[in-house]
Amino acid sequence: MSLLVVGSVAFDAIKTPYGKTDRILGGAATYFSMAASFFTDVRVVAVVGEDFTEKEEHVLRARGVDTSGIVREKGKSFFWSGEYGENVNEAKTLDTRLGVFANFNPQIPEKFMDTSYLFLANIDPVLQLNVRRQLPGARFVAGDTMNYWINGSRQQLGEMMKSIHALLINDTEAKMLAQDPSLARAAKKVLKMGPQALVIKHGEYGATVFFEDGAFGIGRHPFRAPTLPIEVVADPTGAGDSFAGGFMGYIASQDKLTREVFKRAMFYGGVMGSFAVEAFGTERLQKLTRAEIEERYKVFRELTHIE
Amino acid sequence: MSLLVVGSVAFDAIKTPYGKTDRILGGAATYFSMAASFFTDVRVVAVVGEDFTEKEEHVLRARGVDTSGIVREKGKSFFWSGEYGENVNEAKTLDTRLGVFANFNPQIPEKFMDTSYLFLANIDPVLQLNVRRQLPGARFVAGDTMNYWINGSRQQLGEMMKSIHALLINDTEAKMLAQDPSLARAAKKVLKMGPQALVIKHGEYGATVFFEDGAFGIGRHPFRAPTLPIEVVADPTGAGDSFAGGFMGYIASQDKLTREVFKRAMFYGGVMGSFAVEAFGTERLQKLTRAEIEERYKVFRELTHIE
Repeated sequence: MSLLVVGSVAFDAIKTPYGKTDRILGGAATYFSMAASFFTDVRVVAVVGEDFTEKEEHVLRARGVDTSGIVREKGKSFFWSGEYGENVNEAKTLDTRLGVFANFNPQIPEKFMDTSYLFLANIDPVLQLNVRRQLPGARFVAGDTMNYWINGSRQQLGEMMKSIHALLINDTEAKMLAQDPSLARAAKKVLKMGPQALVIKHGEYGATVFFEDGAFGIGRHPFRAPTLPIEVVADPTGAGDSFAGGFMGYIASQDKLTREVFKRAMFYGGVMGSFAVEAFGTERLQKLTRAEIEERYKVFRELTHIE
Repeated sequence: MSLLVVGSVAFDAIKTPYGKTDRILGGAATYFSMAASFFTDVRVVAVVGEDFTEKEEHVLRARGVDTSGIVREKGKSFFWSGEYGENVNEAKTLDTRLGVFANFNPQIPEKFMDTSYLFLANIDPVLQLNVRRQLPGARFVAGDTMNYWINGSRQQLGEMMKSIHALLINDTEAKMLAQDPSLARAAKKVLKMGPQALVIKHGEYGATVFFEDGAFGIGRHPFRAPTLPIEVVADPTGAGDSFAGGFMGYIASQDKLTREVFKRAMFYGGVMGSFAVEAFGTERLQKLTRAEIEERYKVFRELTHIE
């Protein structure tokens, strides 16, 4: 079924111990839609500047992504520059230039009004809520956020969280949001804020989904998916967004949201995140095949399952 | 089959956000043997002081542990005082008094010479190697170590590692030992130092076992076991040693060391670690039943397994 993502399409300058790039296609909605495109039809709503050309659009189109919701405005696209050191879980931001993204006010085109699955990538929670309200009929809505909004827009974030089914954040964000250093307790507290499911991404240790009692008729036991121990993390950028893309893409491809579907979605999320970091930017996702995805899914099973 | 542990039997003073104790039975060999005792017959070789009474010995005896290898010497038992803050993975050592442990020179009693499974808990690698040489016929030998020996006795540790089948350490220790910040690469490098299997404990994220190619005829793919997201970690002391006890205890209880046995051992290790932290010192392990262990093992499966 149709999956819509609203978020950033951007350019990144990235330095890691394995290389350096001055300008590469990036942004949460880019990674998300490319990862999700292996599972279902994906639509993007975003804003870009005049520097976003046919070449960049082709990267998304080549994956069958509907780019007609990407609005081109006068000025420059969102630009982020960051560096990763020995710890691949932490980026050091060197520069952020919002460009046309500063006035992003996403409007859902008429033709996307039949959207069933919606992902609100990390943007101002006021805008996330605004998009959510434009698509009241969406069956399953998930969202992301970050420390900036947790610290500065707690009330607006609270409103947003009440409007979605699942929140996808990392350990630090969960603890910050709940103001509790225990991950298990933090999960419980965040679930009280609105979402029925909370997916906490642990970086190289995988991810855990926590459920509210009786959420989706699925029960309350958490579920943990692994990641692959990877020797060369070429570029960690986009790992979390690729996880979200695999997760939401798989859910959108299934008729029913059962506990098994949720579990498999967690695995596919981990699989897509593990591919994304193997090369710079979206390079690995561009070359990826569904057969490789299924192969790695099996490796994830072998990594965690007892006969 | 018979499992022997050589290591510390000690007293601990522990402070955590959940409570405080001035003097409680502790030590790696204590946690290890109690956890392992649920799976197989366990023997301890250790040294204690005159402060180690019938009361403490009874805690081990009540679990069927053979304490005849615990030597009583003039002086005080090893004493450790530590404090845990918000981060349950890191203890702050307040005081260490070696007491009679300073002259520990473990001699394996004649009656323990038929030992098939041996665990060398965290002590001087020179002593670990000495014990290993006293039991050349042991079928499966595993060991632990810590930053102190990694930094100060690298050569001796290298000798020890060549003499064992499996090394059980945590993330920080693995990276320090390999001098590599990537966990996957560090694992590969440590395996080159001797052991055929390397179990890396990730604290609240579980543990991963890495294998040398063809180790034990098991193949080379790693396997990851979870831990339970726990809301109240009353006292993290002994979690790693309890993991090792569950892991080695289960292996010693099985006829053959197959890949499936290794996987289940990783799960039982996680299960025992998760119980150990629920109360201060060995309190939870004292009250534990095998039925509770099997129940939690099922929860660990449910937490990680896709149908």
